[in-house]
Amino acid sequence: MKTIGYAATNPNLPLAPHDIERRKLRDNDVGIEILYCGVCHSDLHQARNDWGALIYPLVPGHEIVGRITGVGSAVTRYKVGDMVAVGCIVDSCGRCDQCLNHEEQMCREGVTQTYNDRDRITGEVTHGGYSRHIVVREEFVLAVPKGLDISRAAPLLCAGITTWSPLRTWNVGPGSRVGVVGLGGLGHMAVKLAVGLGAEVTVISRTDAKTADALALGADRVLASGDATAMAGSASSFDLIIDTIPMRHDLSPYLPLLDVDATLVIVGQLGMVDEHSTLPLLMGRRRISGSPIGGIAETQEMLNFCARMNILPDCEMIAIQDINTAFERIERADVRYRFVIDMASLEAA
Amino acid sequence: MKTIGYAATNPNLPLAPHDIERRKLRDNDVGIEILYCGVCHSDLHQARNDWGALIYPLVPGHEIVGRITGVGSAVTRYKVGDMVAVGCIVDSCGRCDQCLNHEEQMCREGVTQTYNDRDRITGEVTHGGYSRHIVVREEFVLAVPKGLDISRAAPLLCAGITTWSPLRTWNVGPGSRVGVVGLGGLGHMAVKLAVGLGAEVTVISRTDAKTADALALGADRVLASGDATAMAGSASSFDLIIDTIPMRHDLSPYLPLLDVDATLVIVGQLGMVDEHSTLPLLMGRRRISGSPIGGIAETQEMLNFCARMNILPDCEMIAIQDINTAFERIERADVRYRFVIDMASLEAA
Repeated sequence: MKTIGYAATNPNLPLAPHDIERRKLRDNDVGIEILYCGVCHSDLHQARNDWGALIYPLVPGHEIVGRITGVGSAVTRYKVGDMVAVGCIVDSCGRCDQCLNHEEQMCREGVTQTYNDRDRITGEVTHGGYSRHIVVREEFVLAVPKGLDISRAAPLLCAGITTWSPLRTWNVGPGSRVGVVGLGGLGHMAVKLAVGLGAEVTVISRTDAKTADALALGADRVLASGDATAMAGSASSFDLIIDTIPMRHDLSPYLPLLDVDATLVIVGQLGMVDEHSTLPLLMGRRRISGSPIGGIAETQEMLNFCARMNILPDCEMIAIQDINTAFERIERADVRYRFVIDMASLEAA
Repeated sequence: MKTIGYAATNPNLPLAPHDIERRKLRDNDVGIEILYCGVCHSDLHQARNDWGALIYPLVPGHEIVGRITGVGSAVTRYKVGDMVAVGCIVDSCGRCDQCLNHEEQMCREGVTQTYNDRDRITGEVTHGGYSRHIVVREEFVLAVPKGLDISRAAPLLCAGITTWSPLRTWNVGPGSRVGVVGLGGLGHMAVKLAVGLGAEVTVISRTDAKTADALALGADRVLASGDATAMAGSASSFDLIIDTIPMRHDLSPYLPLLDVDATLVIVGQLGMVDEHSTLPLLMGRRRISGSPIGGIAETQEMLNFCARMNILPDCEMIAIQDINTAFERIERADVRYRFVIDMASLEAA
């Protein structure tokens, strides 16, 4: 079917309206009318080709919420009218140990990304959620639980699961001492989800200028990384630090904050980090790790948790026509904390 | 009591004979006649003040094997004549969570190191095993199990426990896929201990020049880090990599070798490592960690394991008069794999 969207046709041009051809439904596909799509920092990185290997035209968007408009003949999970969501991945091999262990995000053959990738069967380029319709294999479609505000749920599909997954991997629960570095799209979800899990949450920020914001999100306190006395007083006091900084940076200030055997998990920066000392690693058996999104079952678990706990991202709704301005504002970190595109605006284009 | 040893009196002078005063036995002390002392790379670092904060004169040595010559009035574990050992630490607070959890090496108040430290009660400077006698609190003394060759056991007290502890922390056992980077004092023990635990062991070395040595130690194979094809073919194939390189280096070649959720544990380098990418960390939830020696109970466990499995370091016996030459040879990595000082040679001085 033909549909419309917004695409980057070259890294130096703004996104602009673009006609998209979506595949006919296969037996196990569902067709979705997209109602909302979150704007992820990685959409911006990819539209501008910061990571290379881009396929043009590029239709970004992997925080998708919409309504089922059609189902393939073998579809069993969904029916027309169901409210559903699609995240960063739309397919995987389904046979490897990781897929069988419900960790499709680490498929041994590599996942099929929602955009800027190629369909595993036909090789067609995948296009994301800055569009009116999408067709996705039912196993990679999430159910939107009743009670979850669909106009704010979209960012859960990337920012939500990217911070939920490490909280679950490292067993965060009541009493866990969690630090969050960076208070953007990912960081603000890390705070809300960790608080929801019962953790004691500290936002670690250069100054204490964000204290009011952090407390409003539910954090217990702010630790100013520029305050040497406060940092020394917080040595060995965290079980998990989620580092959401989306650029090259120095891990050194944060490592001594970890308790023995505790982990700093990087979720924001895909690329280099600065040289660092091994001393805090050896002396406290501290760990540095990273984490990508999460598996489909874990994503569903997170959506259900958010519905039950009434946890939602803080969003600013925009029309698709505002997307280029939104990209500029994301670059300046001028958004609290996530833009969501109202896809009805596409029809006004 | 007065005894003799070898000391560095300044970072630029060779070690030379030196008179040492050992404290009178406290109620919980044992007196030990030192028979053998291993020569650790950190003895060299400290004698030359590479790490700063040195107290002169410095008597190195924290791989000590000897015989009990006296016991304090409250000593219950040992009697005169027992064969015992002393490692890197001789005291800790005994009250914190780490001490109570048998991880004295991570005592919240800081351990008392065997040398270049200060006694917790009197503040006297501690002197190590390059000496004829030593006095140590009984709780920090290990029993040398019957059957363990005392002339080769000394390096177990640092090189042994430093590689044993991470093998135990990360649950290495039959079928575990363990990589060992660097084949010196630590590396050769990592190979022997991992093989003893039933792991499949690969030595990762720049070239395959060390293949014969690695196989002789019990390793299953050598992976040449300079062979791009072999490295790519070994991606995601290790559960644990023990990195024993004792200098600044780049972790990047090794991280992609880790399987999902697997760990590279640094045990050799106390200081900076190069900048590196977060990509292998995020994409496979891989981990970088470090590990210091081990607790006293874990050290005893390792000694008992080595006695049972007949695992011993490969040693070259020297006289104390050869220590400065030995230091030079360690700097050139010209030893397979550990020097041990026969302390009877002190009397010839």
